[in-house]
Amino acid sequence: MIENIKDIKPIYPTEPWKITEPAFKPENNYRNETVFVLSNGYIGMRGTFEEGYKLPKGLGMEGSFVNGFYESETIRYGETAYGFADKTQTMLNVANAKIIRLSVDGEEFSLFEGKLDEAKRVLDMKAGTLSRFVRWTSPKGKTVEIRSTRLVSLTNKYAAAIEYAVTPIDFDGEIVLISLIDGDVENNTKENNSRIDYGPYGRVVLPVDRRCEGAFSALRQKSKNTAIGIVTAMRNEIDFDAARENTDDEFTVSTRFAFKARRGKTYTLTKYITYVTTRDFPEEKLYDAAKTVLSDLSREGFAALAAAQKKYLDEFWENADIEIDGDDLLSQGLRWHEFALLQSPGRDGKTSLGAKGLSGEGYEGHVFWDTEMYVTPFFNFERPEIAKQILMFRYNTLDQARERARVLSVKRGCCFPWRTINGREASAFFLAGTCQFHINADIAYAVHQYVTATGDDGFLADYGAEILVETARFWVEFGEYIDYKGGKFCINGVTGPDEFAVLVNNNCYTNMMARENMKYAVEAVAFLKEKMPDKYAALAKKIDLADEEPAEWQRAIDNTYIPYDETRGIYPQDDSFLSKKRWDIENTPFSEFPLLDKHHPIVVYRHQVSKQADFVLAMFLLSRYFTREEMKRNFDFYETVSVHESSLSACIFSIVADAIGYHDVAYKYFMTTSRLDLDDYHANVNAGYHCANMAGTWMSMVFGFGGMRLDDGELSFAPVLPEKWNSYRFRLLWRGRLLEVKVDQTGAHYRLLRGDALTIKSNGQEITVE
Amino acid sequence: MIENIKDIKPIYPTEPWKITEPAFKPENNYRNETVFVLSNGYIGMRGTFEEGYKLPKGLGMEGSFVNGFYESETIRYGETAYGFADKTQTMLNVANAKIIRLSVDGEEFSLFEGKLDEAKRVLDMKAGTLSRFVRWTSPKGKTVEIRSTRLVSLTNKYAAAIEYAVTPIDFDGEIVLISLIDGDVENNTKENNSRIDYGPYGRVVLPVDRRCEGAFSALRQKSKNTAIGIVTAMRNEIDFDAARENTDDEFTVSTRFAFKARRGKTYTLTKYITYVTTRDFPEEKLYDAAKTVLSDLSREGFAALAAAQKKYLDEFWENADIEIDGDDLLSQGLRWHEFALLQSPGRDGKTSLGAKGLSGEGYEGHVFWDTEMYVTPFFNFERPEIAKQILMFRYNTLDQARERARVLSVKRGCCFPWRTINGREASAFFLAGTCQFHINADIAYAVHQYVTATGDDGFLADYGAEILVETARFWVEFGEYIDYKGGKFCINGVTGPDEFAVLVNNNCYTNMMARENMKYAVEAVAFLKEKMPDKYAALAKKIDLADEEPAEWQRAIDNTYIPYDETRGIYPQDDSFLSKKRWDIENTPFSEFPLLDKHHPIVVYRHQVSKQADFVLAMFLLSRYFTREEMKRNFDFYETVSVHESSLSACIFSIVADAIGYHDVAYKYFMTTSRLDLDDYHANVNAGYHCANMAGTWMSMVFGFGGMRLDDGELSFAPVLPEKWNSYRFRLLWRGRLLEVKVDQTGAHYRLLRGDALTIKSNGQEITVE
Repeated sequence: MIENIKDIKPIYPTEPWKITEPAFKPENNYRNETVFVLSNGYIGMRGTFEEGYKLPKGLGMEGSFVNGFYESETIRYGETAYGFADKTQTMLNVANAKIIRLSVDGEEFSLFEGKLDEAKRVLDMKAGTLSRFVRWTSPKGKTVEIRSTRLVSLTNKYAAAIEYAVTPIDFDGEIVLISLIDGDVENNTKENNSRIDYGPYGRVVLPVDRRCEGAFSALRQKSKNTAIGIVTAMRNEIDFDAARENTDDEFTVSTRFAFKARRGKTYTLTKYITYVTTRDFPEEKLYDAAKTVLSDLSREGFAALAAAQKKYLDEFWENADIEIDGDDLLSQGLRWHEFALLQSPGRDGKTSLGAKGLSGEGYEGHVFWDTEMYVTPFFNFERPEIAKQILMFRYNTLDQARERARVLSVKRGCCFPWRTINGREASAFFLAGTCQFHINADIAYAVHQYVTATGDDGFLADYGAEILVETARFWVEFGEYIDYKGGKFCINGVTGPDEFAVLVNNNCYTNMMARENMKYAVEAVAFLKEKMPDKYAALAKKIDLADEEPAEWQRAIDNTYIPYDETRGIYPQDDSFLSKKRWDIENTPFSEFPLLDKHHPIVVYRHQVSKQADFVLAMFLLSRYFTREEMKRNFDFYETVSVHESSLSACIFSIVADAIGYHDVAYKYFMTTSRLDLDDYHANVNAGYHCANMAGTWMSMVFGFGGMRLDDGELSFAPVLPEKWNSYRFRLLWRGRLLEVKVDQTGAHYRLLRGDALTIKSNGQEITVE
Repeated sequence: MIENIKDIKPIYPTEPWKITEPAFKPENNYRNETVFVLSNGYIGMRGTFEEGYKLPKGLGMEGSFVNGFYESETIRYGETAYGFADKTQTMLNVANAKIIRLSVDGEEFSLFEGKLDEAKRVLDMKAGTLSRFVRWTSPKGKTVEIRSTRLVSLTNKYAAAIEYAVTPIDFDGEIVLISLIDGDVENNTKENNSRIDYGPYGRVVLPVDRRCEGAFSALRQKSKNTAIGIVTAMRNEIDFDAARENTDDEFTVSTRFAFKARRGKTYTLTKYITYVTTRDFPEEKLYDAAKTVLSDLSREGFAALAAAQKKYLDEFWENADIEIDGDDLLSQGLRWHEFALLQSPGRDGKTSLGAKGLSGEGYEGHVFWDTEMYVTPFFNFERPEIAKQILMFRYNTLDQARERARVLSVKRGCCFPWRTINGREASAFFLAGTCQFHINADIAYAVHQYVTATGDDGFLADYGAEILVETARFWVEFGEYIDYKGGKFCINGVTGPDEFAVLVNNNCYTNMMARENMKYAVEAVAFLKEKMPDKYAALAKKIDLADEEPAEWQRAIDNTYIPYDETRGIYPQDDSFLSKKRWDIENTPFSEFPLLDKHHPIVVYRHQVSKQADFVLAMFLLSRYFTREEMKRNFDFYETVSVHESSLSACIFSIVADAIGYHDVAYKYFMTTSRLDLDDYHANVNAGYHCANMAGTWMSMVFGFGGMRLDDGELSFAPVLPEKWNSYRFRLLWRGRLLEVKVDQTGAHYRLLRGDALTIKSNGQEITVE
C-alpha cells in the first residue's frame, strides 16, 4: 500500500524555516488554509484571507476555533441501546475576527478581481507569523501594495494580532479600511465527516449583545445547547489620521477608517484580537476581560508581541529542532510538523488536543488516544509543561470516566472515552469507539512516560497515581480469569487499535498494555507508600483504595493471557485473527480502498486485514518483552496484512523496522509520514492537520532512527543513519537536562547542553554524558 | 428464568372456543385490543370499539392495518458506514373504518359515561367474529341495548363488515347513527419500539380526495414517501327508514342516519368495509375496485359473509384443532394461538407475516426469520397453500436479496434481509440484524420442509430450487476454507439466533444450517436434472447456473467446520463462547433483566449467556445429527446459560427436552409458551401478537410431545403424554392426506382421515396407516 505515494512531488519551495505560497491559485487555497493555520492551543485561525471571502464548497472553508468551545446535540441512532453515548460534542466555528477589507477609491480589493502582480504568503516558523505580500492593480488601474503580518500568540493565550499595511503605488486617493468581526458562522461538520449523520446544523452560535466603545468593539455570543458564553473582541489602532466609525448589527461589529492616501506612503492598521469564554471567566466579566487583554496588547504594541513570539520560538527550536544534513526537504517537513504540534494542544488542563488540533473541523475537534500515544511523547521531551497539561485534562475529567465505567457495569475504576471534548464519551459507533478500551492503558502509558522523562514525582503523587489506579481498577473488573483459557486473565469484547477487527477477545495490544497499566499502578502505589506516605494516605482516602488492591492487580499481571501461536511464532492480533479469511491486498483494485469506505463493515471485519499498526505498536511500546527474532517474524507477518489506512500506522512500522534492522523499510515508511500533510499525500490536508502523524514523524526520528528507549527509566539509544543523509541531530529534555544526539557517518555523538551529568546506553554500551 | 411466570393466573374465562371479556374495564382495554384483533392476512383491525375513542397513552391504541401498506424514511445513524440499510420500512396505521357513533336523544353513547349494565365482548373462534353486547343507560336515564358483530373475512381478502343493532329499552326517541371512516391517523412507532429512534413521525398518510355517492363513501389517501395509494371505503345499509346524510372533509367521510325509534324495536345498521391499494390496482381504478367489493358484499349480505367465514373455519379446525383432554385452559390457549396465526400471514405472495402479524405496530410490521422457522411449519401441516404464499414472498423478493448480497461484496447468490416489508434490508443495527445471515438457511429449510410435507415438486421446480441455489451460492462465497482451522469451511463474522453473541466466528447453528442449505441445493439440482430436465434447463439459464457449481457446494458441505469441544462433549455456540466470562444468572437481581435493556451491549456480548435457543434450536431442527446423549449433555449446558429473553426460546427448549426424555422440563417450558399472550406473561400483549411463540406452541405439541420428525422425507413420531393430561390429539396434512395422531394412556393412535395409505414410524416402529 505504501508504494502508492512514492510519486508525489513537494508542493512548497524547499526552505529550511519557511513555507511559502509563491502565488495565489484558487485551486490550492483550501489546502493552504490548513498549512497556514496559526494557533496557540486556545485560539485557532485557519489560513484564510483578511478579505473574508465566502468561497464555494471545495475552494475553502473559513475557520476560527476556540479550544473547549463546543456544541452538543442528541445523537440519533438507527437503533439505540443502553449506554450508547447520548450527546454529540462538536468544536464550533467561532466568529471570524480576522477580517480587514480594503477599498481604493471605491473599488474593493479582491484576489478574484483586478490584476495580481504578486500575492505571496510566508509562514515563518522561527517568527511564528504568517506574512503576506500583495501587489494589486484594481480594475480601474490603481495599484496598491499590501503587507500584512498575522500572529496568534504563543505567550498570551488570549491574544492574536494582525498588522496590515497598505501603500498606494501610483495614485493619490481615498482608501477605506474596514476591520470587522463576523459572528455569522456555521459549522461544516457534515461535509467533513462523511460517516456522521448529525449536526450541529445551522446556526448554533447565537447572538447575545455587543459593545463598541472607541477603539474597542466586541460581540457576545452563546452556544445554543451548551450555553457557553463567548466574547470576540478587537481593538484597531492606526498610525495615520482618519475618522473612526463603529457600526454593529446582530452578527457583526465593525470599525471603518476612511482617509485620503498619498502615493508612496504606507498606512498601517494594527488589529488586536481576543476571544474569552465563560469556561475561563464569569459571564458578566467577559467584556472586561476582553478589554483588559486588548488594552495590554495595544499598550505593548505589535512589535513587542512579535518579539515575545520570536523569543518563545527561539527557545522551542533550541531543543526541538531536528536537523537533517543532506535533506532540506525533510528538515522543512519535520519543522513544520513540530511547529504545528506546538501550536495545537490546550495548556489549561481543561482542554486537550483534538485529532486535528485547532486547524479544522475534522473529527469534530475530538480528543482520541492519538493525543496520549502519539503527541504526548513529543511534548514529554520537548515541552514537558505542555505534556503535563495534556495529562491534566485526563485527570480533570476522571469523574466523567468513572461515570462511564458505571454505565459499562464496572463498579470501580474509570473508563476514558474514545472521543471527547468535555470528558464524556461522544463516540456514536461503539464497535470502533467505546470498545477501544485500550485508551485507558494508553493514558496510563503516557502518564508513566511523562513521569519517567521528567522525574516529576509531584505530578505522580498529586495526579498521575490516581489515573494509574483508576485505570488499573477498571481492568481487573472488566477482564476475567477464564477456565477455558487455562485460568488466564482475559479481556474479551474489545477493539484494538486496528479498527478492522472489532469486538474481539484478547487483543494482544490491549492485553499487554493493560498489564503494563496495572504494573504502573502497582509501582506507583508502592512508591507513594514508601516515599510519600502522606500523599498515599490522601489518595487512599480520596478513592477508597484498600491495601489489598495492588495484590489483585498483581494477580492479573501475573496471569495475563497473551495470544501466541507456537507453530508460527506469531502473536496473533487477537484470539480469532488467524482464523479469518485473508484479504487479498495485492489483487484488490485501488478503487476498492479505503476498505471501509467501499465495503460493509461486516465484510472487512471478517477478514484478516489490519487498518493500522496494532500488534506492531505493542512491539514498539513494549519492545522489552520481545526478542529481535520475534519482532522480525511478527513484523514480516503484519506487514503483509496491513493496509495503513490511518495516518497513525506508517510511523510505527518505521520505528519497529529500525529496531529489527530493516533500515530501508524504515526509511520508506518514514518518507510517507514526514511530509504527509505538507505534500498532501492523502489529499485531505484541507480539512486540517494529522497531528498524530506529525508527532509520529518525530517519534520515527527519535525512537526509530535514534533508537531511543526508556526501559526501567534508563535512557538508551541505538542510532541508525539512513543512507541518503550525511547526519542528523535532535535534542531532548530529560529530567531537567538538555541532551543532544547527533548521528553521522562516524557514529553517534552525545552532548549535554544543560543539566547534570547523565549515564545513558548507546548500542548497549554505557556512556556518561557530561 | 422461566420460574418467574408460574404464578400468573388465567385472565379470561375458560371456554373451549371463545375468549370472553365479561365486563368493560379500562385498565384491561389496551390488552384486549390485541386479544380481539380480527384480521385476514391483508386487513387487520385491533379490537377497539366502534365509538372510536381517542384514549390516552397506555389505555389503548387504535390500529387498522393493511398488509404491505408501509412508509419509508431515511435511517439516520449516529455514525453511518457503507452498506448500512438506508431506509426504514414501517407498516402504517391506516384509516379507521370501524367507527359507528350512536346518540340517544342527543346523548352520545360512551363507555365512559352513563351506566353500563352490561358490556361484554366475545371472540368466537369457530365463527370468526367479535361480538359485543352492551346495555347502557344514558346520564339522563335512557337505556339502550347494543349488539354488534364484526368480522374480517377469511374468504374475501378485501372484506370486513360490522352488523350494529340498537334497541331502545325504555323510551321512544330520536336515535342518530353516524358511520364514518377516520383517516386522520398516525403511527405510534416510537412508543412501541424503544430502541428505534426514528419515525414515521406525524402524518404520513396524506389525503388525496374522497368520493361519496349514495351508500358508497370512500377516502383516498397516499403514503408520503412510498406513495402507495389507498382507498378506504364503506357501504352502510339499514333495515329501517331513515334519512341518509353523507358528509366529508379532508380526513373523514361519514354517513348519518337520524330516526325516531320506538321502545323495544331493534334497528340494524350493516357496515361493509374495504381497503384497496395501488399494490393491487392501478391508481385510477381504486374507487371502482372498492365499489365493486362493497356492492358484492351488500348484495350477498352479512349473513352470507358470516356463513362463509364459519365454513372456512370449520374446514380449518377440522384439521388444525388440537384437543387436550384434561386441560381446557390449554385447549383454549392453543386454539387462540392457531386462530391468531390463521389470521396473520399475507396470502398474495407480495406480503408476508410480520412478527406481530396485523395486530399492532410492534417491530414496525417487519418480517423476520420467525416467519419461516416458527410460523411456516404450522401452515405446512395445517394450511399448506398459505405456507406456499409465505415462501412466494421470499421468491418474489429474490432480486432485492441478490442486490443485498452485492452490497456485502458477495458476487453470486442472495442474502435475505433480517427485517423487511418490501424485501430490502431494514435493520438499522447490523450486529443483531444483517449479521444474522442464518436467515438465508432458515428460508431454505422452510422451502425444504414445505416441499417435504406437501410433495409439491412443482413449487420446487418453479420457485424453491431458485431460492435453494441462490442461498447456497451465498454461503460458498461468504464462507472460506481456513488453513488455521485445518482447511475447514468456516463462516466468520456472523450473529446466530442468540443476539447476545454478535459478530462471532463459526456459530454452530449457522454453520450446520448453512451446510443443510447447501445440501438441499445439491439435492434439488440433482432432482431437477433427473426428473424435470426442462425445468432444470430453464433455471440454469435464468440464473446462469453452471454444471460444476453443485460440486463447489458439496466441497463446502463435506468440509463444514462444526465447533466441538472434545473434553466437555459440548458443541460451543461459536468459536469463542466457551472463552467468555459466564454471566451469573442466579445472582443477577430481577431488576437487571432484560439484560440488554439494563446493560451496554458490550457488557452482554462479552459474557457467556444466551438470550434464546441457538444451538438448542439446531438440536431440534437437525436432531438427526446428534445422539441422545449428546443432546442431553448440550441441553444441560445450554439450559444453564440461557435467559429466554425472547418468545422464540421456550418452545424450542420444550421440544428438545421431550426428545431427550426430560418430559417434566418440557412441560414446564411448554406451559410458559402456551398461554403467553392470552395470559399476558410478558405484560406486553397490548402491543400485539407474539406470532413466533404462538406457532412455537403448536410446534411444541407436534414436534415436542408428538415427537414428529421428517428426516429423509419419512414421517415419524415419538409421542409422549404429559402426566396432567388424559389424552391429546392433533391432525396434520401430509402430501394430500389428513392424518390424526391421538395419544392417550394406552399409547399413540394413528388414523388416516383422508388420502392414500401411508407408512410412518412410531417410536421407531414402522406402521402403515390406512
